Amino acid sequence: MDRRSFLKNSALGGTAAAATTLAAPALAQGNRTLTLVTTWGRGLAGVHDAAQRAADTITAMSGGSLTIDLKAAGELVGAFEVFDAVTSGQADMYHGADYYFVGQHPGYAFFTSVPFGMTPQEISNWYYQGEGQAFHDELGSIFGLKSFLAGNTGPQAGGWFAKEITGPEDFQGLKFRMPGLGGEALGKMGASVQNLPGAEVYQALASGAIDGTEWIGPWADEKAGFQEITKFYYTAGMHEPGAALSLATNLDVWESLSPEHQKIVEIASGEAHQWNLAQFMDNNGAALQRLQAGGVKVLEFPDTVWDAMGAAAKETMDQYAGDELYDRMRASYNASMAASSNWITQSEGAYRAQRDRVMG
Amino acid sequence: MDRRSFLKNSALGGTAAAATTLAAPALAQGNRTLTLVTTWGRGLAGVHDAAQRAADTITAMSGGSLTIDLKAAGELVGAFEVFDAVTSGQADMYHGADYYFVGQHPGYAFFTSVPFGMTPQEISNWYYQGEGQAFHDELGSIFGLKSFLAGNTGPQAGGWFAKEITGPEDFQGLKFRMPGLGGEALGKMGASVQNLPGAEVYQALASGAIDGTEWIGPWADEKAGFQEITKFYYTAGMHEPGAALSLATNLDVWESLSPEHQKIVEIASGEAHQWNLAQFMDNNGAALQRLQAGGVKVLEFPDTVWDAMGAAAKETMDQYAGDELYDRMRASYNASMAASSNWITQSEGAYRAQRDRVMG
Repeated sequence: MDRRSFLKNSALGGTAAAATTLAAPALAQGNRTLTLVTTWGRGLAGVHDAAQRAADTITAMSGGSLTIDLKAAGELVGAFEVFDAVTSGQADMYHGADYYFVGQHPGYAFFTSVPFGMTPQEISNWYYQGEGQAFHDELGSIFGLKSFLAGNTGPQAGGWFAKEITGPEDFQGLKFRMPGLGGEALGKMGASVQNLPGAEVYQALASGAIDGTEWIGPWADEKAGFQEITKFYYTAGMHEPGAALSLATNLDVWESLSPEHQKIVEIASGEAHQWNLAQFMDNNGAALQRLQAGGVKVLEFPDTVWDAMGAAAKETMDQYAGDELYDRMRASYNASMAASSNWITQSEGAYRAQRDRVMG
Repeated sequence: MDRRSFLKNSALGGTAAAATTLAAPALAQGNRTLTLVTTWGRGLAGVHDAAQRAADTITAMSGGSLTIDLKAAGELVGAFEVFDAVTSGQADMYHGADYYFVGQHPGYAFFTSVPFGMTPQEISNWYYQGEGQAFHDELGSIFGLKSFLAGNTGPQAGGWFAKEITGPEDFQGLKFRMPGLGGEALGKMGASVQNLPGAEVYQALASGAIDGTEWIGPWADEKAGFQEITKFYYTAGMHEPGAALSLATNLDVWESLSPEHQKIVEIASGEAHQWNLAQFMDNNGAALQRLQAGGVKVLEFPDTVWDAMGAAAKETMDQYAGDELYDRMRASYNASMAASSNWITQSEGAYRAQRDRVMG
């Protein structure tokens, strides 16, 4: 409570000053430039692209009257400093994975991914048609942010391991990189979990600081080069079945934008969500084939591991129960997921099964 | 060949004149209004909403400098007249399902849905990251259109029948509404297939002019009221596993737009594609429950029907072979679908199976 009140006051104080500073030179000529910081190293496959897509389309649709200046991780602030940078007014916007900020509020996990949570279509249903956007706004009113989904990696791979996983006991003491509540769940299975930003993962794996890592999926993982270090790759995982990315604007800056600039930011974010999801999904198939051809062993976790993951995920999600906002979000999220999943199974699920059977 | 050359010349001649007429009053005040005709009756659930979404966001993002005036089917031209209206310059844009225009070129089917074709994610992958948009542009260069996907109904239900379907012989002589190449495939199974616009389907079914119909899915079908007439409902079908909708602009009008207005139309279309897909997918689950509670019998076709559908679909797709553009599009579409499907099965498919097993 105290922490949140402090953050809120701090954010509002900081951004009011920042907005004033920004406004004078920019509005004089009718144009504005907003600084966008990200949690991604410049050029990081897919995730940096989502941020760049949103930035470029905002700039282009506004004819340059709202220009977005993208600063990748480390160029203005560090990857995990973007939340504070934007709530304090040091930067105007961030693009990142909101589950990096579960320390601010556990509800932020729902806007990236939670263990045994939504697939990409399910999160779109909840966010754009259900209560998702409204909950994002409610969190934003606490911290001084206006957020939209603006990217999605698709279902993430289970990750890279030094040896084959034969049962849940193999996670005991394993030093593994996994952020968010998925990482907390893995910790309950005995793993020693680390939350490293993307730009630092390769070096940690190569040096032995971690035994294994999940990152995103075949395309981004191949570009990161993990196949140079380890060869056991699990394609499905419980931790991020459809990881959304967010574009968040300092709330005072947001409220100072014209209605057309606000709409441009909103629609550019939504389009980036879809475009980026297609980017990952389209590239993953070919990348997986290349990885296999290069000697990577592609595997699925045994049922005993999935069972242990299920218990750990439930325990993880339960531990935040009692926070009134978290409880409402979780109930809304789970109800939407159940309804979405039911129709997807009866339509797309049944169709895919028949297409595979009939067309081979 | 002659037909296409004629259409091309006709379109270019017509639209050049129209652009001149439009430009004079509109550009004088720096604002333009474009007329958007649609294949949907005003208010038709989901499909009209997609057109309205794109129109509203274009108008809002441009601050009214590009205002879209939506004319639903029948308000300016009939549902199936929109293609000719836009290529001739009578209207500036249409929103519709491009498979209504397979008579212009069979390749248009790929931009809505083809039998045993792509799911929504697969079409996004092909369109936004693969060669789909480029093929849409190639068709557009023949007919004088610049098109974008701008809506998606999700996987469509198999449809409404007067009695339970026990085998492929039940389709002999059945008077059934189904557009596009799916309808052609059903014809090869012996059905008497009709291609009615949405606004006319209920009356045709109620009067007995048709024995059955597919429309979209539980939510839109319930709003159309088919459950008042017939009670046998098949949730999965082969004909439209993810039906995309398009926003097409007369090519001369398109080329007269400023770069920022072009980008606004492009991004608004992409966002409408995602938003509309979420609208259908989110509403379908609850609607299916209501239909079942109201006495509708929810069924799946037996394997023998799917087998016959598979043979009919292949025969349908084969019959256009030899058209050089169609052949290139089909090869591109099928290669993309195979690659997409492979990763989706190994990631989301494996995850969904485990989530269902572990979490129930």
